[in-house]
Amino acid sequence: MTIQIGIIGCGVMGADHARILHGGIPGGKLVAVHDLDPRRAAQVAADAGGVRVVGAAHDLIADRDIHAVLIASPDDTHAALATACVEAGKPALCEKPLAATIEACRSVVAAEMRGGRRLVQVGFMRRFDPGYRAMKRGLDDQQLGRPLFLHCVHRNAVAPHYITSELVIASSAVHEIDIARFLLGEEFAAVTVISARSSRNAPTRQPQMIVLESASGVVVTVEAFVDAQYGYDVQAELVCEDGAVSLAPNPPVSFRHAHRDGFAIEADWRARFADAYREQLRQWVASIETGRPVGSSAWDGYAASATAAAALKALSAGSRTAINLAEKPAFYQPSLIRTHGSNCAVRWT
Amino acid sequence: MTIQIGIIGCGVMGADHARILHGGIPGGKLVAVHDLDPRRAAQVAADAGGVRVVGAAHDLIADRDIHAVLIASPDDTHAALATACVEAGKPALCEKPLAATIEACRSVVAAEMRGGRRLVQVGFMRRFDPGYRAMKRGLDDQQLGRPLFLHCVHRNAVAPHYITSELVIASSAVHEIDIARFLLGEEFAAVTVISARSSRNAPTRQPQMIVLESASGVVVTVEAFVDAQYGYDVQAELVCEDGAVSLAPNPPVSFRHAHRDGFAIEADWRARFADAYREQLRQWVASIETGRPVGSSAWDGYAASATAAAALKALSAGSRTAINLAEKPAFYQPSLIRTHGSNCAVRWT
Amino acid sequence: MTIQIGIIGCGVMGADHARILHGGIPGGKLVAVHDLDPRRAAQVAADAGGVRVVGAAHDLIADRDIHAVLIASPDDTHAALATACVEAGKPALCEKPLAATIEACRSVVAAEMRGGRRLVQVGFMRRFDPGYRAMKRGLDDQQLGRPLFLHCVHRNAVAPHYITSELVIASSAVHEIDIARFLLGEEFAAVTVISARSSRNAPTRQPQMIVLESASGVVVTVEAFVDAQYGYDVQAELVCEDGAVSLAPNPPVSFRHAHRDGFAIEADWRARFADAYREQLRQWVASIETGRPVGSSAWDGYAASATAAAALKALSAGSRTAINLAEKPAFYQPSLIRTHGSNCAVRWT
Amino acid sequence: MTIQIGIIGCGVMGADHARILHGGIPGGKLVAVHDLDPRRAAQVAADAGGVRVVGAAHDLIADRDIHAVLIASPDDTHAALATACVEAGKPALCEKPLAATIEACRSVVAAEMRGGRRLVQVGFMRRFDPGYRAMKRGLDDQQLGRPLFLHCVHRNAVAPHYITSELVIASSAVHEIDIARFLLGEEFAAVTVISARSSRNAPTRQPQMIVLESASGVVVTVEAFVDAQYGYDVQAELVCEDGAVSLAPNPPVSFRHAHRDGFAIEADWRARFADAYREQLRQWVASIETGRPVGSSAWDGYAASATAAAALKALSAGSRTAINLAEKPAFYQPSLIRTHGSNCAVRWT
Repeated sequence: MTIQIGIIGCGVMGADHARILHGGIPGGKLVAVHDLDPRRAAQVAADAGGVRVVGAAHDLIADRDIHAVLIASPDDTHAALATACVEAGKPALCEKPLAATIEACRSVVAAEMRGGRRLVQVGFMRRFDPGYRAMKRGLDDQQLGRPLFLHCVHRNAVAPHYITSELVIASSAVHEIDIARFLLGEEFAAVTVISARSSRNAPTRQPQMIVLESASGVVVTVEAFVDAQYGYDVQAELVCEDGAVSLAPNPPVSFRHAHRDGFAIEADWRARFADAYREQLRQWVASIETGRPVGSSAWDGYAASATAAAALKALSAGSRTAINLAEKPAFYQPSLIRTHGSNCAVRWT
Repeated sequence: MTIQIGIIGCGVMGADHARILHGGIPGGKLVAVHDLDPRRAAQVAADAGGVRVVGAAHDLIADRDIHAVLIASPDDTHAALATACVEAGKPALCEKPLAATIEACRSVVAAEMRGGRRLVQVGFMRRFDPGYRAMKRGLDDQQLGRPLFLHCVHRNAVAPHYITSELVIASSAVHEIDIARFLLGEEFAAVTVISARSSRNAPTRQPQMIVLESASGVVVTVEAFVDAQYGYDVQAELVCEDGAVSLAPNPPVSFRHAHRDGFAIEADWRARFADAYREQLRQWVASIETGRPVGSSAWDGYAASATAAAALKALSAGSRTAINLAEKPAFYQPSLIRTHGSNCAVRWT
Repeated sequence: MTIQIGIIGCGVMGADHARILHGGIPGGKLVAVHDLDPRRAAQVAADAGGVRVVGAAHDLIADRDIHAVLIASPDDTHAALATACVEAGKPALCEKPLAATIEACRSVVAAEMRGGRRLVQVGFMRRFDPGYRAMKRGLDDQQLGRPLFLHCVHRNAVAPHYITSELVIASSAVHEIDIARFLLGEEFAAVTVISARSSRNAPTRQPQMIVLESASGVVVTVEAFVDAQYGYDVQAELVCEDGAVSLAPNPPVSFRHAHRDGFAIEADWRARFADAYREQLRQWVASIETGRPVGSSAWDGYAASATAAAALKALSAGSRTAINLAEKPAFYQPSLIRTHGSNCAVRWT
Repeated sequence: MTIQIGIIGCGVMGADHARILHGGIPGGKLVAVHDLDPRRAAQVAADAGGVRVVGAAHDLIADRDIHAVLIASPDDTHAALATACVEAGKPALCEKPLAATIEACRSVVAAEMRGGRRLVQVGFMRRFDPGYRAMKRGLDDQQLGRPLFLHCVHRNAVAPHYITSELVIASSAVHEIDIARFLLGEEFAAVTVISARSSRNAPTRQPQMIVLESASGVVVTVEAFVDAQYGYDVQAELVCEDGAVSLAPNPPVSFRHAHRDGFAIEADWRARFADAYREQLRQWVASIETGRPVGSSAWDGYAASATAAAALKALSAGSRTAINLAEKPAFYQPSLIRTHGSNCAVRWT
């Protein structure tokens, strides 16, 4: 069976997902799009080979010919749309964040648990990046011992003017929060944030240094700097008791020219994570077939947002801040996927 | 429309193509396989989700439910099978070499020209490798000037015992001959072969150093060494008037462990060129839809084989040997693709 | 004139300096050594081609045939020996730290100022490393803009059992404190320390993450981990407004062997900083000739120790800690080197 | 004892040697220079701290205060000057080539053997480069097996107009001939030369591809291209039965700037081989003290020149050309260094 997909939101990310689906994802097919701006929707629909434009998001979710929904609309619409998908029994891939507030994240989790089926995947695409996956395999396979440090760098070339010091954390560094949880397999207990001075290229916001401490004592550092000018650059080094593993740059070629030996740095995340975005869609579609969820769950979406919120508190307080997540319900344990009718109650702290 | 594909030959390469098709190639679907060994065919058919096994190669070609054929049978069967596909009007992706002899290559070309349609693609997958493609773009974009040298290294970790000094050239270095023609956009005029001493790991054959000279004077060197032990390693550096561009190794991660900083080398060509093989199938399927051939044509298959044959002559003669290819018919010019009923006569020299 | 040099302390560092001097430093010559253990002194003296052994440190300092003194004795003897050199009017290269306590650092500074001549250099050899020097030039030359972050990693393969969590900072990370001051040209205003869990290879101490904030808002991170097992590894990345510059690994060769592509990591700091140690001695000897001090001054030794002491306080407090250094006297300003009889009073805070 | 050194020839190389000696080489001291152009001599003498200018080369050789002579004059004067040094019993470091003709090389060898003492070192500085030395150690230590291929690249950024296709071999590639003999420990038996087309940047000469075959069957390739524009670039990969070892680029730092990640390429050989030139002088001076010759001998100078001459013959003939070297006399065997009065007769072929 071919999974017929609808996209809600035709901005940068929605258009990019449409482009990838149109390029071909085995077992999946883009059949409809929606955007509040009908011209934008029409454009993306045309670029994707002439799929339908649906006039209202909830009509798209309700459409019987649409089997799965990709949510790429503004952040503050995510929770309601994801909940609507859950209630309609339709798998949803929701761009990060899962919701604009922690409360709203919780409500999506609660809705999903009520429904008794794991239907929501959060679009933390890095979990599908070959580098991070090899890093995780390295942890298991390479006799590196247990992890002690994870050093992350997240640099954007340029960011829109409306990005604030807070959004540097909530919108950029949240990717590192998710991937660190994925790599380490545990939650964070505390966070400290130290701001650097502003770059003259963006005097209204500050680059941030975020230091997270995991429950078991792994220290994760995240430099989040959205005005790096020279390119989009994501680095990670996982330091363990007996060795270390780092993401390797992987340009296809290197050049020697004009007294320089080097290679091109990607301009943005779509180029850098092109493989990850494609693989995310491929595995999402496959997971709908098999019923085995992959990637970040609604719970992961909640945990990443709650950790980012604690980092914002630490930024504002200027001191080390404890992170208190709710206890993870059995419903979201790997061994219990596809549980139906779970009654686990989440204790929100 | 989904292109329904049959595979002839279920050895290493046929099985690998079946695996990739089964993993999902947009617009394409594996529906049948054939092998002289019915158990091998049955195994590959089962691994690919239970496709049909066809008892005879020519039945597979004639099957109305099969739209396109992938030929991965022994080399000496290629020409007859490709010709049969051409005569049946079916697109064929033929593993290299196009044929076991130059005569047979010519006969496939002649058959295709008689048919008036470009139907045969030769499986030189490197043309779809991101590295070589970036190298070609670099030639066009990077103000490097015209090419002067192309240095190639082709090393296999281990090779079967039946590989001879001659097959090191005809079977391994022929990949470099095709990719060099692709990069440089011209034919070779002369070739010199110099043998190194044998490795103690394979005393029955010699590693070869092949030096090709293009029509315009570009010198292409190819080290072909199929017993390198340490891994599968393909290198290329294109040296131009104002700069150079090299294939970059692209491991996803690097490790620091046991007083070493480094990364894993692939074990064989399937791992190294995994992206290229998938992209080759993807573009082949797409090209059937659009009618615009991609990759190596039957002509390219002839030219690569004829150049390799000249290299074998040079090996045997121990001296610089001229390469005399037939003149390329207009039928195979890029601007004339999908020509019907061309009357161009090829002048074979 | 050849500068005749005596070494006090024949442990690991003293023996290494002796070896380098014996290998030849232009304009300098090792003539005598001292160690509390006469056998150790005799061994180093013999290895250095048969120089004199002097029975008491103060006799060595007083010796008229010794023009300059290299202090490589235990840390708690540094201050008294450096002061004795100053009072004897003899240039001294003192291994770091300048003194075992901040008070003692101050007393050396005061003694030197009383004497009116810059005679003490602290052995922070990294200031002579080609990598850090190129990084500093890069800051000036490469249109990188102003610095925002400096990320440092300091890993030892194995450390002696007596190294504590505190010594990880005071003895290892102090090198990063000095080199960061050198690169940034300013002092630190605050420091936060976050400990990682212990490695199973050294359960009695913790790896440390030190986050320093410079007066102008540059954030400097230092991972200090003395049990990294895989080798001695010093990394640094300086992130600026328009670009970044990193220390490059510089192995002479790389190997492809056993399915790995990589290079050897140095075992310890003497191998990693061999060039720096030699250049430090070369420039120290040359500076004695010219009278123009180079490298870290007594003031730098004080500032590094005082900053490290604040980091220890932060470690113990578990919170961000202000750093209050005394104001730098004009005596130590670059423009006033070789000042005689300066009356500047240092205001110790 | 300090070795007092005189330099004959104050061009680019002579001036550079003077600069290095003035910077300090343990145990050695520049005391005099000579050049046919007295102003050039005076300039170099002044830059080196005011050493003597000697009006005639032979006066410098005869000068009793000069213990050793560095010959950096034009190529066609080398043989006579080296012979004069030998006859005066003075060690000489002679810039490559040893002599302008094979005959003249032989005459220096004959003079040295008559004298019964190894006094001449040829300035093939690469033998002192850390990279090549590590490569040689790698051959011995790394379980790589026996060598099969050595791939060399020798690129200059720009070359003077008078450099011809022949000088590309005789003057540039001769460095690779010497270092290959050093690495492999054997002579070459045959050579083939294939010219590439000219670069538009230097239409009067051709880049050359030289393929050498050692006595035991190792194939050595040398790309010699003196107009590479982008920088000075020397590469080498030694391919053995069980692994390979390559020269690693060793920039002190790498930069990320303007969408590029990379590092600076040296402008010329003096920057690239700065360590090698210094180490060459250091070891030469030390070898005079110990009487144990290091580096390339007069015999090595002859063998390199004779091999280069065969390559020129191959270039002109356009075919594989045998190399017939005289048999190496016992006088030049490593085990017989400092032999006095050897009667070995060289059989020149």
